[in-house]
Amino acid sequence: MEPQKKLINAAESCVDEALLGLVRASGGLSLLRGHRVVLRSDLENLKGKVALLSGGGSGHEPSHAGYIGAGMLSAAVAGGVFASPPPGSILAAILSLHNAGASGVLLIVKNYTGDRLNFGLAAEQARNQGVAVDMVIVAEDCAFDQPSKAGRRGLCGTVFIHKLAGALAEEGCSLAQIVSKVTEILKGIGTLGVSLSPCSVPGCLPSFDLPPGDMELYGSFSVDLLTQVASADEVVKTMIDHMTNPSSQSHLPLKSGDSVVVCVNNLGALSCLEMAVVTRSAILCLESLGVVVARVMSGLFMTSLEMAGVSLTLMRADKETLRLIDAKTTAPAWPNLSSVCLSGRSYITEPLTTSKRPQDEKHSEGPLSPVMHKALEKICSTLLEKQEELNSLDRASGDGDCGNTHAQAAKAIQEWLHGHVVPGCPGQLLLVLAGLVQEKMGGSSGALYSLFLTAAAGHVTEGRSDAVAWANAMNAGTEAMKKYGGAAPGDRTMLDALCPAVDELIKLTTAPSGGHMAVLQSAVKKAASGAEATRDLKARAGRASYISPNLLSLPDPGAVAVATILKAILEVLEGQK
Amino acid sequence: MEPQKKLINAAESCVDEALLGLVRASGGLSLLRGHRVVLRSDLENLKGKVALLSGGGSGHEPSHAGYIGAGMLSAAVAGGVFASPPPGSILAAILSLHNAGASGVLLIVKNYTGDRLNFGLAAEQARNQGVAVDMVIVAEDCAFDQPSKAGRRGLCGTVFIHKLAGALAEEGCSLAQIVSKVTEILKGIGTLGVSLSPCSVPGCLPSFDLPPGDMELYGSFSVDLLTQVASADEVVKTMIDHMTNPSSQSHLPLKSGDSVVVCVNNLGALSCLEMAVVTRSAILCLESLGVVVARVMSGLFMTSLEMAGVSLTLMRADKETLRLIDAKTTAPAWPNLSSVCLSGRSYITEPLTTSKRPQDEKHSEGPLSPVMHKALEKICSTLLEKQEELNSLDRASGDGDCGNTHAQAAKAIQEWLHGHVVPGCPGQLLLVLAGLVQEKMGGSSGALYSLFLTAAAGHVTEGRSDAVAWANAMNAGTEAMKKYGGAAPGDRTMLDALCPAVDELIKLTTAPSGGHMAVLQSAVKKAASGAEATRDLKARAGRASYISPNLLSLPDPGAVAVATILKAILEVLEGQK
Repeated sequence: MEPQKKLINAAESCVDEALLGLVRASGGLSLLRGHRVVLRSDLENLKGKVALLSGGGSGHEPSHAGYIGAGMLSAAVAGGVFASPPPGSILAAILSLHNAGASGVLLIVKNYTGDRLNFGLAAEQARNQGVAVDMVIVAEDCAFDQPSKAGRRGLCGTVFIHKLAGALAEEGCSLAQIVSKVTEILKGIGTLGVSLSPCSVPGCLPSFDLPPGDMELYGSFSVDLLTQVASADEVVKTMIDHMTNPSSQSHLPLKSGDSVVVCVNNLGALSCLEMAVVTRSAILCLESLGVVVARVMSGLFMTSLEMAGVSLTLMRADKETLRLIDAKTTAPAWPNLSSVCLSGRSYITEPLTTSKRPQDEKHSEGPLSPVMHKALEKICSTLLEKQEELNSLDRASGDGDCGNTHAQAAKAIQEWLHGHVVPGCPGQLLLVLAGLVQEKMGGSSGALYSLFLTAAAGHVTEGRSDAVAWANAMNAGTEAMKKYGGAAPGDRTMLDALCPAVDELIKLTTAPSGGHMAVLQSAVKKAASGAEATRDLKARAGRASYISPNLLSLPDPGAVAVATILKAILEVLEGQK
Repeated sequence: MEPQKKLINAAESCVDEALLGLVRASGGLSLLRGHRVVLRSDLENLKGKVALLSGGGSGHEPSHAGYIGAGMLSAAVAGGVFASPPPGSILAAILSLHNAGASGVLLIVKNYTGDRLNFGLAAEQARNQGVAVDMVIVAEDCAFDQPSKAGRRGLCGTVFIHKLAGALAEEGCSLAQIVSKVTEILKGIGTLGVSLSPCSVPGCLPSFDLPPGDMELYGSFSVDLLTQVASADEVVKTMIDHMTNPSSQSHLPLKSGDSVVVCVNNLGALSCLEMAVVTRSAILCLESLGVVVARVMSGLFMTSLEMAGVSLTLMRADKETLRLIDAKTTAPAWPNLSSVCLSGRSYITEPLTTSKRPQDEKHSEGPLSPVMHKALEKICSTLLEKQEELNSLDRASGDGDCGNTHAQAAKAIQEWLHGHVVPGCPGQLLLVLAGLVQEKMGGSSGALYSLFLTAAAGHVTEGRSDAVAWANAMNAGTEAMKKYGGAAPGDRTMLDALCPAVDELIKLTTAPSGGHMAVLQSAVKKAASGAEATRDLKARAGRASYISPNLLSLPDPGAVAVATILKAILEVLEGQK
């Protein structure tokens, strides 16, 4: 085992610096000078209301200081990492809240001996000073199947108590009313966690070792439930079965028809992807038991430093409990929940009746169909002839499959030509080709050709297919390629053949119609010389940009392919004359 | 290197299951059937407004689907892990939004070739179908100091664009207005990240190796900036210096007096404690440069699976930008921010003028002072005599320091007696002792004795110090010990001596005053026999509960200490007669 790398300044200062970081980042929080106590900065709003104080060892962030705000906690006291806070700071926090005019102070304490004693001591001291103070102990751990004197630990269910007590206090309930309601709700909360990795206190070695393939029930010494990494669905089912098993001393009574709020809590380092997978498992598993999942919170609520693992907290919830969960709070760590019952709602949107792919639609022929058919055939046969030549060029600069990808496109087009007529509308044909190339050519080349063809398509129709229209179409296609591909001429890509050709073709818009063929010939020549000139260019885009420049002495295969295609088209058009 | 343990069901299904988990857990989200597309479930609210679509490879959760909601994105398209989504799904998403009556669709795309091409292709296809669609490319990476053709990547700054464009769309701005505002704001955003560990795509080995002690700039191949783990302050300073260095091609122009929004983004597995430390470093570093920190977001916004690391995003923000950041949104992954400027606000609360510790206050003597003085001296000397005996009992069941902790308390009391008078009010004396013991005795014993004394103190005053008052005080102290300590008689703790004694003492409330001494003598005897009887008890609380029962054949040292103290008091009282 090696010490975990930590992004801190020093083990001794990390708790105080983390508290300062939280307070500085949150407009509604304040630090009590000389103590590890975070308070609402608007203490004046506590006047006449019950104030809520929680706290405990650090290392469980955002618990508890992240839950301070209107509608949740009034203050939180932090101890060292995993260590109970000193009674003196707890008392200072109680007195600050009392002094702000709170009608009483409720301490929400997790069931650990140190916390019980230190919060208890501060409570007794405050009581001696005339403060109305009471304490609620949270002990909702479901990990024990045998009775244990130390008792069930207080875990992530504490966050629910912060929220519910906070909403009640905000509404003006008395200390006694809050204690009574919260005590009742606590009977319907249970938590169980699993970990895939240990965590380590700053400056110390990891707290335990978990060999590859092992996992364990979070912090349980008695239950031998989960010891090997299993699928998320299996792990979650095992957890929920144990949590609700009436033969376990620490189970949560839950029956079909009950409504629950679920908290899927990241113990620290589980990826958000895994968290979402586990969340799905939990919802589906509960629904399979007939339980109504009313709300779900999924994220970091009560962590253990960088432990990779997850805990599930279930809380039985009637309408009143849901109303309190849904109540507004300004606490920075409370999530943006919607107040919609999740079970039973519709969560699938039907797509529009999928428009047919262009290559499947029925087209009708027109006067241009024969020449376009010939041009396509010529392009395809030429690309297939050149397959090995293009591959060989690509082996010097890429992964050697440039000929293959172009051949795939050529074969797809040939196959399509066998079963379909070439539409008389050139724009329709270009969309067909875009569809075929997107689907069959693959890779960046497929996307780039498809982009070119899609952007060009709108510029040529059956009624508008003269040289000017074609020049505009070629130009629009090239511009789209540049725009989305992010390359420019000179970057050693297909644009080094295409752009010089299009610069020539654009002359069609002004040239007299007798000069059109000369422009075409000149464009094809420019494409060829542009491709040839890529020998001397440094690759700045595409895969070739990762290759050392002095390994590149051959022309770019993409540019050569473009020149080849343009030449094939020209030969067909020349044959028409 | 070994494969990372993952809590998933299968590598092939994890992306779809994670999307389902997110959608099922959020009342406002919906899945487009047949696609990895998440949509607002209230599409009807898009009528006449600009809809926003983003997306990209999975593995960056909560990006992007977590940002869907009123005031942010309308939909998001997910690809496989770290892979661009297919154009067909992007197009299906665009058409769903168009069909819902959106006046236009803005695509927010991170600057990766695959995403540019696939979103570009879908955009051109949608345009051909008459949809008003535009695209904003986010490329705010500050990692490059030399120009790179592939260009700056789109990183966590994308989340700011989701928020700002979302607020503008919600207000009814046109597609052109949103594109123009967002394009301007993009010039003032920069991001840099560092990682302490790699991440691994499900089913694959980690993406790279970082030996112990190493760290690296997140995803940078050109800048040799951070290679060894350093302190959080140093790392953050190096990052911000590089991000704002005018000689770096990809720097963010930032000068003293500028106002910024900061996003401290967890790349996946950094602990919340470290995140808060880094957040502090970032705020202090920026303020030291004269920059005004207006808002801070700290958490998981744009992750890379379970990478342990952090990225910093800075955005120059004028009042209008802050107004848009502060606007309401229902997106589940947007944090609960306060709309207060963080720099310059007061964040320290002064504690009340610390009430003097009871042991420092000036007290006046009374008739009871001499006997209480004698009793204290006797308790202290006896505990010091018994120090080794108690340690030896404790070695069998605990950490062998029970005699030492009691001796520490005794010495502290002796020292206090040298410099102070014993107050005539017994309650005041008990509070003095509570303070001394809490401070000097330490551990659970210190807290328990202090609790006992604090709870007892209120029951005995100068005017009310008869046998009945003392019996009630002893009883109240014992009850507090039981309540907060969580142990009961029979658990092999000091309560096994204390409770039988108090059961006797309570008889003082009814016994004729002539019988008081007999009750005291009987109580002390019960304490001694209770302590002796712990030999046969199984430890169920305290440290001894972790020891095998058959190792315990000696009495509990805590119970013996209590019996010793009571006997010392009795001896003094008997001497008074």
